[in-house]
Amino acid sequence: MTTDEDRTNFPAGAVVVSIDAMGGDSGVEAIIGGIELSANINPDIRFIVHGDSIKINALLQKSPALIDMVDVRHADKVVEMDAKPAQAVRGGKGSSMWNTLQSVKDGEATVAVSCGNTGALMMMAVLRLRKLPGVNRPAIAVLWPSRNPSGHNVMLDMGADIKADAADLLQYAIMGASYARNGLGLERPRVGLLNIGTEDNKGRPELQEAAEMIEASQNASGLEYIGFVEGSDLPADRVDIIVTDGFTGNVALKASEGTAKLVGDFLREAFTHSTMAKMAAVIASGPLKRLKNRIDPRHSNGGVFLGLNGTVIKSHGSADAVGVSAAIKLAFTLAQNGFSEKLAARVASANAASKNTTSESNEA
Amino acid sequence: MTTDEDRTNFPAGAVVVSIDAMGGDSGVEAIIGGIELSANINPDIRFIVHGDSIKINALLQKSPALIDMVDVRHADKVVEMDAKPAQAVRGGKGSSMWNTLQSVKDGEATVAVSCGNTGALMMMAVLRLRKLPGVNRPAIAVLWPSRNPSGHNVMLDMGADIKADAADLLQYAIMGASYARNGLGLERPRVGLLNIGTEDNKGRPELQEAAEMIEASQNASGLEYIGFVEGSDLPADRVDIIVTDGFTGNVALKASEGTAKLVGDFLREAFTHSTMAKMAAVIASGPLKRLKNRIDPRHSNGGVFLGLNGTVIKSHGSADAVGVSAAIKLAFTLAQNGFSEKLAARVASANAASKNTTSESNEA
Repeated sequence: MTTDEDRTNFPAGAVVVSIDAMGGDSGVEAIIGGIELSANINPDIRFIVHGDSIKINALLQKSPALIDMVDVRHADKVVEMDAKPAQAVRGGKGSSMWNTLQSVKDGEATVAVSCGNTGALMMMAVLRLRKLPGVNRPAIAVLWPSRNPSGHNVMLDMGADIKADAADLLQYAIMGASYARNGLGLERPRVGLLNIGTEDNKGRPELQEAAEMIEASQNASGLEYIGFVEGSDLPADRVDIIVTDGFTGNVALKASEGTAKLVGDFLREAFTHSTMAKMAAVIASGPLKRLKNRIDPRHSNGGVFLGLNGTVIKSHGSADAVGVSAAIKLAFTLAQNGFSEKLAARVASANAASKNTTSESNEA
Repeated sequence: MTTDEDRTNFPAGAVVVSIDAMGGDSGVEAIIGGIELSANINPDIRFIVHGDSIKINALLQKSPALIDMVDVRHADKVVEMDAKPAQAVRGGKGSSMWNTLQSVKDGEATVAVSCGNTGALMMMAVLRLRKLPGVNRPAIAVLWPSRNPSGHNVMLDMGADIKADAADLLQYAIMGASYARNGLGLERPRVGLLNIGTEDNKGRPELQEAAEMIEASQNASGLEYIGFVEGSDLPADRVDIIVTDGFTGNVALKASEGTAKLVGDFLREAFTHSTMAKMAAVIASGPLKRLKNRIDPRHSNGGVFLGLNGTVIKSHGSADAVGVSAAIKLAFTLAQNGFSEKLAARVASANAASKNTTSESNEA
């Protein structure tokens, strides 16, 4: 809890984002740069910024337009990128990360954004905001470039937990669908379960069970279950949401990122390999820039923690101002659409439905 | 067993590859085209080709140079690409796939190559060739483009089995190292275990246990254990062999392939998007071709089945002549290096070592 008294000069109706200025690889500059980019585009947004107030204020002085849009809250402590989550949480009270979450808990802000240590942020978020009633394992959902009209698919869990049983996978499907409705504007998102083949009898037993549960819940959950999908469907347009356990999801995400980076590096090497190639690069700069924009990971920056009382967005640790601004845009969109409440309502109604089914089958 | 009598006119010392001409998406043409490409480069190679002898002979007549290098064996039956493995095996006797494996079993050929149904090929290979003594789960190893000097990393298991316990993962490490020594010429390959973080305490319990087992065996197995690696290390130069269970491996491989294809498609779209872009593509054709060559999946075609009495190579179902030729080159390299025998010896000595350890600890 902070003791500042001058916190509430934001106009009623403004969307307030609580943001952790510390802990990212690119320092406070990237955060304030991201805030500036977002504020220029979106005058309805306000920020509570937590961290080293001397550094933050020094940067803000260069952008007078931000003064009324930003409330700076000093925090002495920073959670280090390489800290073990449990340690970070034990000594974390009063850190910029802790206070960023506290602003959401206290209702001052609708959504929290941090570039810091993922494991620490998740553990602290569970501790401060608590899991939604009936949620066993919260999940991290990310956007992945795809051939879909929105340009993205949603994948979860990307590593909040290393395990997921069938009931968890069903909850991921429901939460992912709610996210896609509110974050990507998809009315009835198509959900696929990640497996190593698309035949019904493929894969691990919990996947068979989850497939039946998701299929049975599709109308109540406002999603369309399309069956098993494979790794090759990550960037495909046959699915909007790809559901998997956090171990598989984390590996698939990092492998795909690594591959995209390898291809990008090879492309750069091909165009710098000789004088002729360098000249070709100048002439081809238009198409090359177009490609770069399309696969720029900064535009899909922001992992959303699902299953908590409140929305938390994990920005990539190495995000620059453009990346931070993308995470803020996502935060704004979700906050404006009342995502936290809608997600809580979805999870509650799914729980109620499953209890009804249980008691009905007990009666039968 | 075939009844042909005229099979042994191959010179002593020739490396004989048994190849399934049927079952691939690109038909017999791709197989004979691949044989021709390989035979042109490598006069020491000989082929036993199984399948529709009318089609095969018609194609061979156009390439008289091949006549002495190829022995055609007619097979009436073909295992379909979408057949369920168990069904394919039950009705598979006398199919081109079955006979391709039989030639290795009978000692006529050193290595088998097929573009057909992966699941059926693996099940049939286990049935015909049998697992090496002490191998619990055979694995499929693939080459993946990387920043390593050889241009590739080895990954396994890519989906022979959906599960792997710690002892299986140790065996994958030993078999993968033997493959890298004989296939890529690496004397002491670096092995990493795929996980969702590189800290020692990360991930599932079987990974902790496997890490200890691989570390303890590294000298006996002629490998260097470098610890946990992440999805982002798939194309990295800090590791030569990436060990994981078949579920995770299959997802990671297909996700990475899908991503590389997406980036390739975006690149093509960027260079065809306008008249200016099309002109730029002509001028940039050198660098673009260089890139295409480097990420061309045909050059790393060929999944090797490890843990059987004999070497089997699964070519991609959609491989064209260039892809088939790459799989044949891999088959030749492994056969020439006596890979089957060396792998069997490695596995046997690892089993003996583990039995010694067990009996020692029983005595202690």
